[in-house]
Amino acid sequence: MSSERLIYLPLGGAGEIGMNCYVYGWGKPGEERLIVVDLGVTFPDMETSPGVDLIWADLDWLIAAKDRIEAIFITHAHEDHVGAVGHTVHKLGKPIYARAFTSNIARRKVEEAGGDPDIVETLGPWPHQQGAGPFKVGFAPISHSIPESSALVIDSPGGRIVHSGDFKIDLTPGVGEPFDRAMFVEIAKDGVQALVCDSTNVFSTHPGRSEASVGPEIEKLVQAAPNMVIATTFASNIARVKTLAEAGQRAGRSICLLGRAMRRMIEAGVESGVLTDFPKTVSPEEAADIPRDNLMLLSTGSQGERRAASAQLSRGKYLGLEVSEGDLFLFSSKTIPGNEKSVIRIINNFSERGVDVVDDSRDLYHVSGHANRPDLEAMHGLIAPKMVIPMHGEHRHLREHARIAEERGYAAAIAPNGTMLDLTGEKPAIAELIDAGRTYLDGSVQIGAMDGVVRDRIRMALNGHVTVTLIVEDTGEPLGDPWCDLQGLPETGVSRAALVEVLEEDLSQFVNRARVKTLLDDEAMERELRQIVRNTAQNEIGKKPEVTVVISRVS
Amino acid sequence: MSSERLIYLPLGGAGEIGMNCYVYGWGKPGEERLIVVDLGVTFPDMETSPGVDLIWADLDWLIAAKDRIEAIFITHAHEDHVGAVGHTVHKLGKPIYARAFTSNIARRKVEEAGGDPDIVETLGPWPHQQGAGPFKVGFAPISHSIPESSALVIDSPGGRIVHSGDFKIDLTPGVGEPFDRAMFVEIAKDGVQALVCDSTNVFSTHPGRSEASVGPEIEKLVQAAPNMVIATTFASNIARVKTLAEAGQRAGRSICLLGRAMRRMIEAGVESGVLTDFPKTVSPEEAADIPRDNLMLLSTGSQGERRAASAQLSRGKYLGLEVSEGDLFLFSSKTIPGNEKSVIRIINNFSERGVDVVDDSRDLYHVSGHANRPDLEAMHGLIAPKMVIPMHGEHRHLREHARIAEERGYAAAIAPNGTMLDLTGEKPAIAELIDAGRTYLDGSVQIGAMDGVVRDRIRMALNGHVTVTLIVEDTGEPLGDPWCDLQGLPETGVSRAALVEVLEEDLSQFVNRARVKTLLDDEAMERELRQIVRNTAQNEIGKKPEVTVVISRVS
Repeated sequence: MSSERLIYLPLGGAGEIGMNCYVYGWGKPGEERLIVVDLGVTFPDMETSPGVDLIWADLDWLIAAKDRIEAIFITHAHEDHVGAVGHTVHKLGKPIYARAFTSNIARRKVEEAGGDPDIVETLGPWPHQQGAGPFKVGFAPISHSIPESSALVIDSPGGRIVHSGDFKIDLTPGVGEPFDRAMFVEIAKDGVQALVCDSTNVFSTHPGRSEASVGPEIEKLVQAAPNMVIATTFASNIARVKTLAEAGQRAGRSICLLGRAMRRMIEAGVESGVLTDFPKTVSPEEAADIPRDNLMLLSTGSQGERRAASAQLSRGKYLGLEVSEGDLFLFSSKTIPGNEKSVIRIINNFSERGVDVVDDSRDLYHVSGHANRPDLEAMHGLIAPKMVIPMHGEHRHLREHARIAEERGYAAAIAPNGTMLDLTGEKPAIAELIDAGRTYLDGSVQIGAMDGVVRDRIRMALNGHVTVTLIVEDTGEPLGDPWCDLQGLPETGVSRAALVEVLEEDLSQFVNRARVKTLLDDEAMERELRQIVRNTAQNEIGKKPEVTVVISRVS
Repeated sequence: MSSERLIYLPLGGAGEIGMNCYVYGWGKPGEERLIVVDLGVTFPDMETSPGVDLIWADLDWLIAAKDRIEAIFITHAHEDHVGAVGHTVHKLGKPIYARAFTSNIARRKVEEAGGDPDIVETLGPWPHQQGAGPFKVGFAPISHSIPESSALVIDSPGGRIVHSGDFKIDLTPGVGEPFDRAMFVEIAKDGVQALVCDSTNVFSTHPGRSEASVGPEIEKLVQAAPNMVIATTFASNIARVKTLAEAGQRAGRSICLLGRAMRRMIEAGVESGVLTDFPKTVSPEEAADIPRDNLMLLSTGSQGERRAASAQLSRGKYLGLEVSEGDLFLFSSKTIPGNEKSVIRIINNFSERGVDVVDDSRDLYHVSGHANRPDLEAMHGLIAPKMVIPMHGEHRHLREHARIAEERGYAAAIAPNGTMLDLTGEKPAIAELIDAGRTYLDGSVQIGAMDGVVRDRIRMALNGHVTVTLIVEDTGEPLGDPWCDLQGLPETGVSRAALVEVLEEDLSQFVNRARVKTLLDDEAMERELRQIVRNTAQNEIGKKPEVTVVISRVS
């Protein structure tokens, strides 16, 4: 057990789609030198994380092993891969490597968080390699829905790993490098120990379509539109944004970018050199003076985000621009599971204003950025690794991906977050199980998902809250009656009397009969008063509220 | 304006899919005699209605017009049409008419709510008609995903209305009556004033498929399954439940029904005579002793409901039954928008237990119960009404449905909840706009959606809550320092000190410096203390909590 080994440990992104964070290590058990791949975020929802602003993988394990970390590599600039860089950089304090476009985005994040952006270093593409302790890491360009996405070629004394990053096989991606079969053949020619591989679209059984296929359809639609056109897509999908803008331009329309992310991504694209020949744009102020049938707005908020430009337009004005009867709104995007209601809300808002909404239900105006099953199988074949380790997927995706890999003779393992695999031998073996968790950014504070803070909020949202106040003299004599404040509870219950009065009545009866011994016992009093509130409320309103008891002792 | 008129008023179901409730009236304006069609519910979600148990249309307008109501007619037994009957029957107190199966379900609901089930009367199908003031109403059998669904033929002095109810055109529905073209031709032969028509599937452009088409596919799947099979669907889709059970039976499997709704619906089907020849079932206790490859479970919870049988099985045991590696779980259902995350959670739970999940992504194991666009157009043609009034849809559905009707020469109107239409003339005209709202069942209490109760809960969930307590003597002298209790907030903020201490320190400073005049002014004190908590919290944790201030005055 004391010989050196090659380990893989997903801290986020395996068992969910989002908050990617993977660790590789080489060395004696417990002394491995480590590299980190990606520091991404995922987004909160009202059901499980109300009030939370952002979520990323719990990095406690990494922070405890900080001295063993050599460097951090970011595969591409999607939020689920780069989004936590700003919030965590000071805790890890290690160099961050990325390609130019990703690095441009990562530096902005570090800077906004008050860190030194020079901790982010820009690397060129494969065959360039960056040393990091026992590792040499190269960024192999791969096609995805954002420029300069990369697979990582990770060389170690235990062999070569290909970490696919997010990818699809696209020979005509519009912006960014096409998929380069020959390069991957070359990378794989001396044998690959493990292919750690994107699993997102493993359930899509048809071959993936190229980004180039959506251009002509979008162009037809925009050409035919009689009034203003608004289109939304992920701002980071610069190829799509360019396709949309070019379709507008060819239809004789001025292009206006709406939303901070949209402007920021185009800016980063131009600064980093990945984006050239983007059509000239006009500002929202200029747009307001252009005839509506000569105008095309490109707006953020394809997932129905309440505060994004699309949602604001659907509710009325945005920066002086307003939709009207006969306008066309295009979702050049798919709806991520969980966002359906928000997206549908926007569509109905637009419907009320007479705007025709076109979404991707006919598969014409959007293609996925991830490899479908046949493309995953092609990638397995191209790399021909000893083992395939599925990542970037929920459990069902990892399981299905492992199944198809094994069917074709590769060793495979399902390794959800916290599963440390030993990749040294012929097959992956579980080396250790780590507590994998989530960190919440809550306002400006980072809290653990299991700290109970959010659980308490959910309980108040479901059950309402009652504050009971009672003043007791040192002698045990109550000073007046207990009283209640209600939050988030109905005013009256089945008895038709005010709920607050019924509660106070029952509490008073208890206090007036309580023995001095009880009255002097804070814990007992709190327990009893809470119980009375919960029981009485259950009878009155069929609900047991959360209760805070405040007992003040005065002399 | 004093001549009599025929009115239509949707109170629920137009502008959303759910909580259907429609009103028709005949008479002088403001004196119309009324009938009510359907009293349905919709379901709460954490985002907009945390802690709420059930939602239905605000009936205040109807209750105010109670003396003018003749009767209530229920088209079919889906919860979004019959679910509020029990909760509202005592407020309306009018006879409820339905066909046998629907009536069986409605009577159970009235009984459970403590009402007299005999208020529900069972009617036979068209050509039978029930008088109700100026109206005569008949139940015209129509195919849908539940037995004995009916269109209503509503005759008034202002002409005949066909209220489609929920429907599809299915000539082989399995259980229940097939769609009867000849009957509708007969109904329409003397002219129909208005077709008030289901809009749910107006965006589905292919003709609908028959319930009979899923049987062979389900049978193939079940025959091929090596281990235990579990299938879920809507319990009310008795035809589907029967198809599933028969597929199991033919594969030599014993059938076990899991979940209260599943047993209840089958029971109602048998009692009302719509269901015959249902395969013999075994109890969960008996099932536990049957070899797994000879067993098929039919379970509730196709929408991922946390407490339903499917979700419980996915997390472990349910009534002594447990899934294991290689079992098959079939969703013979579609996921209603908004339920995706819950359904995916179940699929991943099953994946962790090695269960293969088959859903309807290949369109093999489920068909919709609603008419697609070509079928809607066929219905328009069959009835050939003066006007088409789209109902049962979100705004986008109503708008699209009105558009296709107008394209083919029918008068049409988009009438969301609260829009009273005058249907008397050649075209629908807006007669009045009513405040349409929602009633929440919250525990055992009915509250208005806009009462602020739920809003306060959402705020606590997003922002957390602080209780500030301060005791002040009659003289204005504070008795001790103010103190704080925190709910749903992090323990420490940016200063690294305990948040509660930082808050109390700032509050104390204010109280100690406050003038007696301020200390004696409850309102001023409350305002100031709240503001201090919100500002200090904003600095410390980047969040402004909800604040309850309790000032106790003692002498």
